[in-house]
Amino acid sequence: MGARPHVVIIGAGFGGLAAAKRLEREAVDVTLLDRHNYHTFQPLLYQVATAGLNAADVGYAVRGLFRRQQRVFFRKAEVTGVDWEARQVHLRYEPRLDFDYLIIAAGSVTNYFGVPGAAAFSFPLYGLEHAVRVRNHLLSLFEAADAIPDLIDDGVLNLVVVGGGPTGVEVAGAMSELVDKVLRQDFHDLDVMRSRVVLVEQAPYLLAPFSPRSRRYAHKILEAHGVEIRLDTAVTAVTADHVEFADGTQLATRLVVWAAGVRAATLADGLDAIQGRGGRITVSPDLSVPGHPEAFAIGDVADIDDGTGGRLPQLAQVAIQGGNHAADQVLATIARIARRPFHYVDKGTMATIGRRAAVAELPKGVELTGGIAWFAWLGLHLVYLLGVRNRVSVFINWAWNYFTWDRGPRLILRPETLPHTPHPISDAAGPGDGARREA
Amino acid sequence: MGARPHVVIIGAGFGGLAAAKRLEREAVDVTLLDRHNYHTFQPLLYQVATAGLNAADVGYAVRGLFRRQQRVFFRKAEVTGVDWEARQVHLRYEPRLDFDYLIIAAGSVTNYFGVPGAAAFSFPLYGLEHAVRVRNHLLSLFEAADAIPDLIDDGVLNLVVVGGGPTGVEVAGAMSELVDKVLRQDFHDLDVMRSRVVLVEQAPYLLAPFSPRSRRYAHKILEAHGVEIRLDTAVTAVTADHVEFADGTQLATRLVVWAAGVRAATLADGLDAIQGRGGRITVSPDLSVPGHPEAFAIGDVADIDDGTGGRLPQLAQVAIQGGNHAADQVLATIARIARRPFHYVDKGTMATIGRRAAVAELPKGVELTGGIAWFAWLGLHLVYLLGVRNRVSVFINWAWNYFTWDRGPRLILRPETLPHTPHPISDAAGPGDGARREA
Repeated sequence: MGARPHVVIIGAGFGGLAAAKRLEREAVDVTLLDRHNYHTFQPLLYQVATAGLNAADVGYAVRGLFRRQQRVFFRKAEVTGVDWEARQVHLRYEPRLDFDYLIIAAGSVTNYFGVPGAAAFSFPLYGLEHAVRVRNHLLSLFEAADAIPDLIDDGVLNLVVVGGGPTGVEVAGAMSELVDKVLRQDFHDLDVMRSRVVLVEQAPYLLAPFSPRSRRYAHKILEAHGVEIRLDTAVTAVTADHVEFADGTQLATRLVVWAAGVRAATLADGLDAIQGRGGRITVSPDLSVPGHPEAFAIGDVADIDDGTGGRLPQLAQVAIQGGNHAADQVLATIARIARRPFHYVDKGTMATIGRRAAVAELPKGVELTGGIAWFAWLGLHLVYLLGVRNRVSVFINWAWNYFTWDRGPRLILRPETLPHTPHPISDAAGPGDGARREA
Repeated sequence: MGARPHVVIIGAGFGGLAAAKRLEREAVDVTLLDRHNYHTFQPLLYQVATAGLNAADVGYAVRGLFRRQQRVFFRKAEVTGVDWEARQVHLRYEPRLDFDYLIIAAGSVTNYFGVPGAAAFSFPLYGLEHAVRVRNHLLSLFEAADAIPDLIDDGVLNLVVVGGGPTGVEVAGAMSELVDKVLRQDFHDLDVMRSRVVLVEQAPYLLAPFSPRSRRYAHKILEAHGVEIRLDTAVTAVTADHVEFADGTQLATRLVVWAAGVRAATLADGLDAIQGRGGRITVSPDLSVPGHPEAFAIGDVADIDDGTGGRLPQLAQVAIQGGNHAADQVLATIARIARRPFHYVDKGTMATIGRRAAVAELPKGVELTGGIAWFAWLGLHLVYLLGVRNRVSVFINWAWNYFTWDRGPRLILRPETLPHTPHPISDAAGPGDGARREA
């Protein structure tokens, strides 16, 4: 790669991309690594899972972002470890990669908290492939019930969402809308209203990161949409055909969406680093990895002090600002300028609950609920989405869904397994690949 | 279903949909069956396979087409046979279905002509899932070569298309454009131009259904785009890492797209019907199945006399007109009016070869080549595509690709296999399902 310093970035999520973009015109070579060849706009995954958007609307080919930056290289690869002494990144199939600086932005994997059966039988919702799988499965359940109505008695139309945080609330709200407004029109001789959407939360309230007022609003709206909310309820087991709760009761279901939490990507476990809650890499104030000044950890994989003794939340904004900061510290170090500590600028958080219903908490205590929060949510997500074409497509889909009460992207599309598996492409690319890194 | 006559339509392709649409407001109950929950716009599959369009652009949820027609029922099911005596359709997992009238529009499956290894190791391109699989695999090969350049010597960038008919020509043309215009920009340190696109045809010319002038034009344009054309060349075997030709030579490759031909869906083999070329059901002049006046066969699954002793080609227009005709004959029979024979109105054929390059042969001997044929092709396909949203999305994608020389939908998106497989949904919906019906 020549004499320019080589910056390796692990992960093309919000944090990794922000870092790469910040470095693309500087006097460094950048190699960006990701298991997928696309960036995923995670805040909209739940809409793919509920047939509101196409998969391609929320994915963007990483190479397309750096077509004109000849010194930014992308590699679709899975990182298996870091050799600190040799300053090399180990990849699952490809040759090792030397680095001068390393930015670890490997993100999260689903945290099943050791609940028996959860990893095997529930559906995570952290990647685009997960979202497509939920969509395919959900629609298949309705097709099955339409053909064999007895299956409804077996709970085939009971849709369970575990976790009442923003993701769980958004999924449950969108599911109830899909069933009530779309599938009811689609199935002419199926009693679609026998379907149940059940949202399970261990805490005594939904939306823990939000204010009591926002929590109550979300609760009220979801209930009005027919979502059954079970608070103070822990899931103790997931099986192929039911979930079990701490009070000993069961609920028959074939679709359990697991939105109960995430933990740091497993890569974090093998780095000899200090790990905080959820296995996240505890970083120094400049976001570097203690003992390894040439390495930084950002985004969901990083455990970052918020300045008041707490930790920064796992939000896109934290990742983006962290990516920019880490890139700046790399450049400062190369220029022999002193590094600066990271200061997060809170831009607020939002969650959408349904049609014209959302909650938004902005800086300085501004709280919004209802239609205004919903429109703010739509606008902000359009702005932050990558690529003109994705924005246009999302906008058209949203407008269509809004005015027609229809949802176009409800195809059950399941590419078959590859007919042949020539090594080493095969293993790296085969079905089931994504599941390996779930904790 | 009440006392109204029940018309069962097997297949939601061009023919089956046309028949259902013709019957939707008549005094009959209609049940439309398909293995997928979506209609596939097959003429654009090759663009999905070469990352020009999103999968969702060329698929349309069938239920969405009949939301307001309460007496048109859809069922996602695989038909395994017909019991003529009981007037029942047998489904793989669901209860049998009674019918008064039957319209068989089951389409085609890939015909491997018994070539060893072709079914196991080549990629068909007849369904949307096939197209997605080709796209994923093609892009994965370039990712693999980028990471491990030695793989290029193993032929990992040799892309082989078997069959020089319209599908093969369109795929080869679009592939060479993808490599030359898009992937060359994407991969900064891969010698993309070492990739080869090889189009293999058994006959001494491409585009057999077209005039000699169109054939020569297609040949010239493809060669100008760098496609290697091997005429008079039969493929005798396909393996995991090469193809073998009749002259004993081999070509290393990891991607063989099989566009050499189709045969009737296997359903046709179990109906005790007279079968013509490719196993197609030979029909009476009114498109009914001889000996079964209550049943019709249309589209690719039907063997239809063209009035001059030849057979009608397997084109969307033949299927659509056949679907309308079969529906009309059902209504005529119910109304006790005499049936009429089917007369196909030729509207011409087209094939696109590349950017501003296509061939079109219209009725009355009008032949077009080049830019005008290409624009005609674009316009016609936009008009025939189902759904306003799909049209808008395709239009945007085309405009984008045309002006930016980019292709957005180049995600390697491969939903993981389902974590659990509760019967009977699982089997009906699991990966590999599609492959079973390939001949």
